[in-house]
Amino acid sequence: MTEDKVGAFVPGPRASVAGAATGPLAGLRFAIKDLYDLAGWPTTYGNPDWARTHPMPGSTAPIVTMLLEAGASVVGKTKTVELAYGLTGENVWHGTPTNPKAPDRFPGGSSCGSAAAVASGQVDFALGSDTGGSVRIPASYCGIFGIRPSWGAISLAGACALGPSFDTPGWFAPSAALLRRVGEVLLPPGNSAALGPLLRPGKPWANAEATTAEALAPALARIEALLGPALAIGLAPEGLETFYEAFRCASAAEVWAALGPWVAEHKPSFGPGVGERFAAARDMPAQKAAEGRAFRQVAQARLHALLAGGAVLAFPTSPGPAPLLSADQATQNSVRARTMGVTAFAGLAGLCEVSLPLGMADGAPVGLSLVAGPGRDLALLALAERFAS
Amino acid sequence: MTEDKVGAFVPGPRASVAGAATGPLAGLRFAIKDLYDLAGWPTTYGNPDWARTHPMPGSTAPIVTMLLEAGASVVGKTKTVELAYGLTGENVWHGTPTNPKAPDRFPGGSSCGSAAAVASGQVDFALGSDTGGSVRIPASYCGIFGIRPSWGAISLAGACALGPSFDTPGWFAPSAALLRRVGEVLLPPGNSAALGPLLRPGKPWANAEATTAEALAPALARIEALLGPALAIGLAPEGLETFYEAFRCASAAEVWAALGPWVAEHKPSFGPGVGERFAAARDMPAQKAAEGRAFRQVAQARLHALLAGGAVLAFPTSPGPAPLLSADQATQNSVRARTMGVTAFAGLAGLCEVSLPLGMADGAPVGLSLVAGPGRDLALLALAERFAS
Repeated sequence: MTEDKVGAFVPGPRASVAGAATGPLAGLRFAIKDLYDLAGWPTTYGNPDWARTHPMPGSTAPIVTMLLEAGASVVGKTKTVELAYGLTGENVWHGTPTNPKAPDRFPGGSSCGSAAAVASGQVDFALGSDTGGSVRIPASYCGIFGIRPSWGAISLAGACALGPSFDTPGWFAPSAALLRRVGEVLLPPGNSAALGPLLRPGKPWANAEATTAEALAPALARIEALLGPALAIGLAPEGLETFYEAFRCASAAEVWAALGPWVAEHKPSFGPGVGERFAAARDMPAQKAAEGRAFRQVAQARLHALLAGGAVLAFPTSPGPAPLLSADQATQNSVRARTMGVTAFAGLAGLCEVSLPLGMADGAPVGLSLVAGPGRDLALLALAERFAS
Repeated sequence: MTEDKVGAFVPGPRASVAGAATGPLAGLRFAIKDLYDLAGWPTTYGNPDWARTHPMPGSTAPIVTMLLEAGASVVGKTKTVELAYGLTGENVWHGTPTNPKAPDRFPGGSSCGSAAAVASGQVDFALGSDTGGSVRIPASYCGIFGIRPSWGAISLAGACALGPSFDTPGWFAPSAALLRRVGEVLLPPGNSAALGPLLRPGKPWANAEATTAEALAPALARIEALLGPALAIGLAPEGLETFYEAFRCASAAEVWAALGPWVAEHKPSFGPGVGERFAAARDMPAQKAAEGRAFRQVAQARLHALLAGGAVLAFPTSPGPAPLLSADQATQNSVRARTMGVTAFAGLAGLCEVSLPLGMADGAPVGLSLVAGPGRDLALLALAERFAS
């Protein structure tokens, strides 16, 4: 066991479960975000009070079992933002993981430890989870491949909930080929029809910092060589703010429904920002949540119709590279809002999204996202592999 | 029988066949473009030499029979551009029909007589046919409703061919309600799923004259009230010229294959422009036709994918109102090229397109087109009716 120089793993004894001797992932080592149950190992959900008030898991989450049966071995549980409710990757209790590709910047979260473990080469791949960007954002920030699969494609049994109608698992890998191999174990067959055309949504590109948009333009051009010219499309005439707002309001109500009772009962200690977000979730007016859900229907119908024939969206995963560790809370909140206007596409509509590490901006990684309609995960992973190779 | 003041009908005895006593179209009167066979009446295809060298039809085109059996009665055969090969509606042998809504302008063609018969109120509806715009353009120019159905949805048996892989029937009516009623008789059930979102392709709007785009903008806004905000989309990054060129080259080869042997054998007399177009079809290099067919595959894949989930394109049917009767041949050719860059969408991809008479520009009618994916004809007609009512 090498030393965990980037602080990817939850402190304490390192979880370890050997995988099957044979299988499509035989010999691979993986880590799991510490919100998946692993029998005999505590699930901290990133917060000491959560760990203290929950029993030791007696069973293992099915998604982990699938990977073990495919031959991969668990070599640790990784840090998560407390209750997965944050995008920077900060965790004051376990220590914020170092971003291996940009040590002066946040790693991104909430699946911060899994991203850091993969980006530092300590594991072959790692499980995360994604509600509002928690796999896509750390993949972009840490310069690795990551996928948020179609909502509902893979069971989240044995995983802690955040906003159930938005929650998905997800995983990170250093290559598109390995990202796909894991997907072939976890994903149902889905729709394998050819993907295309490529769509370039205007606002997510305009929303990105200039250095990021420039850094990713050559990658887009290379994908055009595979799929034909990108067609400009205006997916968000209401503004990305409307998408963010709908996501924020609709998900907040779910978050409070899922976790509010525990928060209210145990009054846990939270690090900076997390408690404030739970307070905002608690105080979300029912009317705003309902408006968010209503807009979600609009966005869902629109995106499903546009992607029904195989079209693929391409845009910067995050508006820029990870914020600096020195960024103040106001800056972090501003980045969060600008980021989630774009991550909201897949979140609101249950789409599958792969982030590919295809650019460097201001010396730090930025990812290009490819997004396809629900159920096209394996086709999207195949496209990512074809493109990245 | 009222006098045919606009010259919509082929000169000579007026064809007449009574429809069934009962049926969904009982009591309605319709005309048919003179390229559909009607037993016992000559099919002129708009050219005296064609009429002279073809036998009297012994049977009636199935599409006409379907309408007769539904209760509608044929009250005449209407003028067509010679061999349907032109968009202005000119016919020097039979006389160019008058555009009832703009008498100083062309009626549009090639289904000029059918459009004029409907626009002048002489019939309840009329059959035309459309290869490169021959229903859509006269519908726009004459201020009436017209449909080019999905390619292959309705048999063209008993109709003269022009470019078979592009040819469709089509019909005109003074209201969206009647356009739909006829469709319910002729069309297979198809895909009745809800339509949306609305897409606003940039180049067809930019290609339109300013007065036409302005005249149709309020109509687009009203459709947005039904379907949600129109999403801007760039369907033709290669340029409309590329679409026109692909249509022109691929269709020319088919036109010559279908009609060249007759033209070469009989050396018919043609009015202005028609002979030149046949000469160009004859001289179309095989390589250019092949390139046109190759681009057609690209356009087809792109448009089918984008419209697969129910999205609807909305754009000006024609770039402007009908050209003035005084326009010279160069002006007519320029209008033709600019027009067919836009009509090529449905032509190349076999889409269904409805033109709605929703604007007046420079004192003459212009239509707004709604285009949906193949097989969605009835849903599109229902949308047009819902919108126009």
